[in-house]
Amino acid sequence: MINVGLIGFGYWGPNLARNFNLNPDFNLCAICDFSGDRLEVAGRHYPHVNLYKDLNEFYKDKEIDAIAIATPVASHYKLAKSAILTGRHVWLEKPMTATVPEGEELLELAAQKKKVLLVDHTFVYTGAVRKIKEIIDQGDLGDLIYYDSTRVNLGLFQQDVNVIWDLAPHDISIMDFLMPFKKVEVSATGSHYYGSDIVPKSLVTVYMQNNTVAHINVSWVSPVKIRQTLIGGSTKMILYDDNQPSEKVKIYDKRVELGHTMEELYHLKVQYRVGDMWAPKIDDQEALALETSHFADCLMNGEKPMTDGKAGLEVVKVLVAAEESLKNKGTPVKL
Amino acid sequence: MINVGLIGFGYWGPNLARNFNLNPDFNLCAICDFSGDRLEVAGRHYPHVNLYKDLNEFYKDKEIDAIAIATPVASHYKLAKSAILTGRHVWLEKPMTATVPEGEELLELAAQKKKVLLVDHTFVYTGAVRKIKEIIDQGDLGDLIYYDSTRVNLGLFQQDVNVIWDLAPHDISIMDFLMPFKKVEVSATGSHYYGSDIVPKSLVTVYMQNNTVAHINVSWVSPVKIRQTLIGGSTKMILYDDNQPSEKVKIYDKRVELGHTMEELYHLKVQYRVGDMWAPKIDDQEALALETSHFADCLMNGEKPMTDGKAGLEVVKVLVAAEESLKNKGTPVKL
Amino acid sequence: MINVGLIGFGYWGPNLARNFNLNPDFNLCAICDFSGDRLEVAGRHYPHVNLYKDLNEFYKDKEIDAIAIATPVASHYKLAKSAILTGRHVWLEKPMTATVPEGEELLELAAQKKKVLLVDHTFVYTGAVRKIKEIIDQGDLGDLIYYDSTRVNLGLFQQDVNVIWDLAPHDISIMDFLMPFKKVEVSATGSHYYGSDIVPKSLVTVYMQNNTVAHINVSWVSPVKIRQTLIGGSTKMILYDDNQPSEKVKIYDKRVELGHTMEELYHLKVQYRVGDMWAPKIDDQEALALETSHFADCLMNGEKPMTDGKAGLEVVKVLVAAEESLKNKGTPVKL
Amino acid sequence: MINVGLIGFGYWGPNLARNFNLNPDFNLCAICDFSGDRLEVAGRHYPHVNLYKDLNEFYKDKEIDAIAIATPVASHYKLAKSAILTGRHVWLEKPMTATVPEGEELLELAAQKKKVLLVDHTFVYTGAVRKIKEIIDQGDLGDLIYYDSTRVNLGLFQQDVNVIWDLAPHDISIMDFLMPFKKVEVSATGSHYYGSDIVPKSLVTVYMQNNTVAHINVSWVSPVKIRQTLIGGSTKMILYDDNQPSEKVKIYDKRVELGHTMEELYHLKVQYRVGDMWAPKIDDQEALALETSHFADCLMNGEKPMTDGKAGLEVVKVLVAAEESLKNKGTPVKL
Repeated sequence: MINVGLIGFGYWGPNLARNFNLNPDFNLCAICDFSGDRLEVAGRHYPHVNLYKDLNEFYKDKEIDAIAIATPVASHYKLAKSAILTGRHVWLEKPMTATVPEGEELLELAAQKKKVLLVDHTFVYTGAVRKIKEIIDQGDLGDLIYYDSTRVNLGLFQQDVNVIWDLAPHDISIMDFLMPFKKVEVSATGSHYYGSDIVPKSLVTVYMQNNTVAHINVSWVSPVKIRQTLIGGSTKMILYDDNQPSEKVKIYDKRVELGHTMEELYHLKVQYRVGDMWAPKIDDQEALALETSHFADCLMNGEKPMTDGKAGLEVVKVLVAAEESLKNKGTPVKL
Repeated sequence: MINVGLIGFGYWGPNLARNFNLNPDFNLCAICDFSGDRLEVAGRHYPHVNLYKDLNEFYKDKEIDAIAIATPVASHYKLAKSAILTGRHVWLEKPMTATVPEGEELLELAAQKKKVLLVDHTFVYTGAVRKIKEIIDQGDLGDLIYYDSTRVNLGLFQQDVNVIWDLAPHDISIMDFLMPFKKVEVSATGSHYYGSDIVPKSLVTVYMQNNTVAHINVSWVSPVKIRQTLIGGSTKMILYDDNQPSEKVKIYDKRVELGHTMEELYHLKVQYRVGDMWAPKIDDQEALALETSHFADCLMNGEKPMTDGKAGLEVVKVLVAAEESLKNKGTPVKL
Repeated sequence: MINVGLIGFGYWGPNLARNFNLNPDFNLCAICDFSGDRLEVAGRHYPHVNLYKDLNEFYKDKEIDAIAIATPVASHYKLAKSAILTGRHVWLEKPMTATVPEGEELLELAAQKKKVLLVDHTFVYTGAVRKIKEIIDQGDLGDLIYYDSTRVNLGLFQQDVNVIWDLAPHDISIMDFLMPFKKVEVSATGSHYYGSDIVPKSLVTVYMQNNTVAHINVSWVSPVKIRQTLIGGSTKMILYDDNQPSEKVKIYDKRVELGHTMEELYHLKVQYRVGDMWAPKIDDQEALALETSHFADCLMNGEKPMTDGKAGLEVVKVLVAAEESLKNKGTPVKL
Repeated sequence: MINVGLIGFGYWGPNLARNFNLNPDFNLCAICDFSGDRLEVAGRHYPHVNLYKDLNEFYKDKEIDAIAIATPVASHYKLAKSAILTGRHVWLEKPMTATVPEGEELLELAAQKKKVLLVDHTFVYTGAVRKIKEIIDQGDLGDLIYYDSTRVNLGLFQQDVNVIWDLAPHDISIMDFLMPFKKVEVSATGSHYYGSDIVPKSLVTVYMQNNTVAHINVSWVSPVKIRQTLIGGSTKMILYDDNQPSEKVKIYDKRVELGHTMEELYHLKVQYRVGDMWAPKIDDQEALALETSHFADCLMNGEKPMTDGKAGLEVVKVLVAAEESLKNKGTPVKL
């Protein structure tokens, strides 16, 4: 039984609390939040848990084996560092840190102290993304050519970061899991609306090796919610629509076929092959439940986190580059 | 009755022929195509029309009052110039020309020779786009903030131009019609797939004055067809989905509301207002039929084309800038 | 504070428990279930609640003011009767009883003992159905002409009742709430599949006064889930699609217009008027939460249940008639 | 080359004219219509065709080898009879005739005079229905259990027949093609709205041998167009949605599994198996084009029509029984 303490009972923290509470390998023993109101809510749901308003006291709670951090990104580095230095394993919300050096330091520190550092890239644990990974690993798509995602909805404007930092980590982590290619350059565009400094809408392009490219469209100011990802391969293509209640993943037997003779190549003759569509059954277990079990396996059986500090750092690197490119209206930034 | 001659009976030409043939103000009198096969098809549909394989002979046909040009973009400038110089009014397919100077010369020439030059930005004539224009002009959306369009499908790879030249003119012309703001800078990303020099997938960002931004996602390599445009205003937002058989235009009473007090502004407090949705009835007349009638009005009654050479040139300018930015991985190009 | 005891912690009971637990006017004080496994689950979620395996002991618990019954329909009559006779108010799952006389007896008994009897027709409390009621009451639809609902999915085959008893109560109660017309005759068709006596798929027609007709299609053996209700009025029509995450209710300005002159009537000239569509904002509060508050109002402030025993009985009457008609392949049964 | 004459250039006739005109085996040589306006339209489209306002003169036209009849159903019998008696092959619109004896007489007459009689059940020739037939014939669905179709939209109220005669022939013919089982009994419900004698909305149930049942929901008074057919088999199920631009046919690996042991059967234990979904590529050739070619094969190569008089008669039998049941509010009528 692992005693886990949670910092942050705002938007996402309650989901972590619920899953740690339901998982038989964990004992949710402490919750820390700066807000008395939030602590009161936490107390109503989990009457047996120790509640802390003061961080120092929380860290001093000897019972805690592992710390889950669900706070704004600016505080991640400091909180996770303290957790590791006080001997705890860490579950850290995405994005891992606000800067690359911070991420690198955490990564090194966790390795040095032999502590597990899991970054919560929740989507990687969904049945849909795991099924897509399985299909890709079987070679069904052929060579991977592009990743193109639209992740837009109305709200929520965060007060401290651009939409890129809020929504793009989902896509960057999914893409990094499915297409673990070296990322080369990033270009991002967007603009400041509503008289605010915050960018609520952005297009991000990640150039990877082998000509693979990712296009990511994120927005907080769309009247409708869209969660649509296209993944193009040389032999098949995927539509992953997370809004659908069923048939979230559709594999299309569609492809572009270049001519092979010299004359065809010369004329750039292109043909299309269009065949069947197939929607595999998707495991509908809650992603966080699976991730919680996986975290237990890492702590008890020495498994390596599927979404470790290295994966977390990859996301931060792209975010930082994207933000710089954004300031220069799309001028690409090398990684 | 206007005698109209058509050059190009390939993919789009037959649609022009059909509409000129059905319109009582036009007499389709001549068709010219380099391909004997296409001419034969044309002859079967329009037995009374003069068929030409030779351009010079076509231009010499005295009967022709107006010339419609539906050929690859590379030939537009030369064909349209000859048409004007031989005293004909011109209906020119989009994009107007392959370069900005070519477009400027045609524009000047048409003005000088007092000939009508209509560029076929078909979408501007659809019931959906005209309804959106009407709603915007009534002030229902408030200040216009963004235009975001996804126009993707499988095929067709053109042999001579990037996907930007093929699909983006639709969005640029719609955007220019709905939001006639000064365009300032363009950034475009994409990549060469399939060992070809042609870019089949691209993201284009157009920065306009007043912080208005357009994002355009075009692709020939998507497994599914998407035609989705979001238009954000300060008081309402629109989803225009051209794939829907009905309810193509949905107006959402949704908006972001910034705080007004100093403290609210300081904390960047953002709220969302979410109200009803409304889908106005859309005129379902074929856009080309309306455009054909409009062309007749321009020729007979001296009306100014809704999509004139100036509108055509605006599109070309953005395309040329986008292509340059594309070569530099998103580095913005000033207009 | 009302002390409420719950009988049945199977499929639906946990939802009642959760809502009574969250509502400040209720104190969930006792749960009864025949299954030790289910009781154990209940105990884990609600550690402070008294658990009963024995019904008699449950009824003897003096703390209980009101009893919620979430058991198979066959037991409703007996359990509700005991509850009333022991002086408790009753929240009873739908369908109210297995027979009309049982329902009538409960209705009378509750009146006699001055106890509140609420039948849980949950859909009546949804934002969507309440909005439709509001629109109808404003006269927007004109005369109500038909109700047509498709409520199909895969599973669950109940062991004791036909699909009609499981799914049709939703539609009958919605219809009765929206169109409180006298029901005249019922016809139902269907068949026994899979070698079982249970009918898993049925079409039910309810003839009402004023030529209004309801058509209800229910099935446990559909590969896809459909929740689509059409409501036809003489001036407007509604599509209510409960599967949609948003825009569940769409009001169409569409109608049939009969001719008015003698000649038009003679020729039965019919015209269609097609206008805009409008999707009002829907209150997204959980229906059960609202219903729980309403139950508290009934108990504490003497309000009359929106879904009282009389409403429950109306549903049972239609179900009983439908089952009889079903046995005779659609032969109508008078109500 | 077969010379074909067409009677009726109203709603559907122009589609037949277009297809006969495009098919190289046919020469559209004559068109007959009572309306001068319609004849004028026909003449504009087909200048070389003989136009007739008088039926007798049309029948006397010696050039005509085959006659296509696209008129209201009341006239089918008389027109088809004259066609056969004057030695012509017949293409007859659905429904074949207004009564069963009329249909039987035509069937016999065609056989006697050795003339081809094709009834235009267009849907049987669609890529979607042919693909479903192929899947069923391969045994993929297991035993066929039900057919359930919703075919509703706004308009058109016909002046002479109920909605059943207008829309249900599509479903009855599809069902008869896919599930050629003996039909046993029919029940139909509906009602007279809008002060008219015509029933614009109806539910039809067809009981077939082997407990297979068809449910058909047809309406002219729905605010939205729905074309959804569910086909249930013992091992797989199909959703055929004719409104979809692609993926019209989806095969679900879903089924109900009854228990096999005595105890499972006793308890009516039911389980569900839910697997993948598969949408096969559908031939998108226009159904009428294929049907026209097939008609040519019947005339020139002695093929038997896929939709012959016998198929046409099956549909009429069900329609006549449904109309009788409709008058008696669902009371079943034996076939």
